[in-house]
Amino acid sequence: HTVSVFPKYIDQKKPCKQFSFYYHDIIYDGADNAANATSAAIVNPPGLGNFKFGKLVIFDDPITMDTNYLSEYVARAQGFYFYDKKLGVNAWICLTLVFNSTEHKGTLNIMGADLMREPTRDIPVVGGTGDFFMARGIATVETDATEGLRYFRLKMDIKLYECY
Amino acid sequence: HTVSVFPKYIDQKKPCKQFSFYYHDIIYDGADNAANATSAAIVNPPGLGNFKFGKLVIFDDPITMDTNYLSEYVARAQGFYFYDKKLGVNAWICLTLVFNSTEHKGTLNIMGADLMREPTRDIPVVGGTGDFFMARGIATVETDATEGLRYFRLKMDIKLYECY
Amino acid sequence: HTVSVFPKYIDQKKPCKQFSFYYHDIIYDGADNAANATSAAIVNPPGLGNFKFGKLVIFDDPITMDTNYLSEYVARAQGFYFYDKKLGVNAWICLTLVFNSTEHKGTLNIMGADLMREPTRDIPVVGGTGDFFMARGIATVETDATEGLRYFRLKMDIKLYECY
Repeated sequence: HTVSVFPKYIDQKKPCKQFSFYYHDIIYDGADNAANATSAAIVNPPGLGNFKFGKLVIFDDPITMDTNYLSEYVARAQGFYFYDKKLGVNAWICLTLVFNSTEHKGTLNIMGADLMREPTRDIPVVGGTGDFFMARGIATVETDATEGLRYFRLKMDIKLYECY
Repeated sequence: HTVSVFPKYIDQKKPCKQFSFYYHDIIYDGADNAANATSAAIVNPPGLGNFKFGKLVIFDDPITMDTNYLSEYVARAQGFYFYDKKLGVNAWICLTLVFNSTEHKGTLNIMGADLMREPTRDIPVVGGTGDFFMARGIATVETDATEGLRYFRLKMDIKLYECY
Repeated sequence: HTVSVFPKYIDQKKPCKQFSFYYHDIIYDGADNAANATSAAIVNPPGLGNFKFGKLVIFDDPITMDTNYLSEYVARAQGFYFYDKKLGVNAWICLTLVFNSTEHKGTLNIMGADLMREPTRDIPVVGGTGDFFMARGIATVETDATEGLRYFRLKMDIKLYECY
């Protein structure tokens, strides 16, 4: 038991599990969209720069298979994001995908910078439970649509490289 | 070195390390319990729904072997949680267990959704230091007691599946 | 495929990758340092104790090879920290190191307690992307300088034990 098994090799093109879906964030405007809203900012930005630096949003967002946020959700994404760039738009996100369907039960946990100015960006999957017990991998994220200050949609492509 | 060692197999019933304890959260009421309090909300919820959506609490909570929060603590749990459900009670938590005793020195780091409506819920252990160097595993959490808005207690069962 | 490969052995003195650098945090004072500031508190502490318990700071901090915060940065550290001790100074930090140079492209993701009263403290590296695909390891952190309420500098020594 004193032999290291590292370095190991993983072929990035051959995840042991892969799936894609859409994440919908409908931001509470403090007024008339409470019925639809799935997220809310909890603080006002402190005024550093012009790109919402420090705005922190908590969410319980639907995950669907197609681009319609009213479609049946296959998971919820629970977590938070905040904006963190003084001279441009950039975010940081941490979330749990909560699956509770006949197909999947369990969670996947994702955290990291969301470099919004890049067309696609990778964010690590750092853990999982249930069907995704001990999983690790990469979530590739792409902004798919934005509607003013109240809605945006991400395409998420999850690739797991540790499956148990 | 070009051979993948995945898929691997882990028997969920045979963690390489396991222990159970209690987590006590004594919430500052802004008035007369500052001496006992171990956590505090830093924002008021923005008013989305009736279940404290967006309330964010930072804590430095004692971990004890029995259910009495005045017992000697075996670790501190340092981190934050927030409520994130519009139509029910649900939370998300991220914390470091800080051990500094003769028995254990080091940290374990846990993050994920805390699906409070389920009797027990699993949250990933995503890293560790010291005695828990590079650890990964699962924390199974159960609400053990609640006293109004000022106190709750969780039973935590930690199971590590990567021990070095 | 039904044989567990755990327990494994890792020699803590032989990381598969290692590098050191400096992290600079220049805190927005809400007044005249907006041009230099790289971080900002988003809430006022709720008043539990005298050590800024609950103060939450969001940052996009430069990482440099030497101690001068005006040196060319080799990465950005994007994330947040907060203070969480009633009877002393202590913090908790979560960040992504974003590398985008000829030498390194990708991210490393770090989270955990920052036990500020200890001269050096270990914080887990829980994931990575790009050149640091699927990385795990330890960040050893040391406070290198502090200037009032507006600036501090950490020396960070990153040791990766899972490299792919």
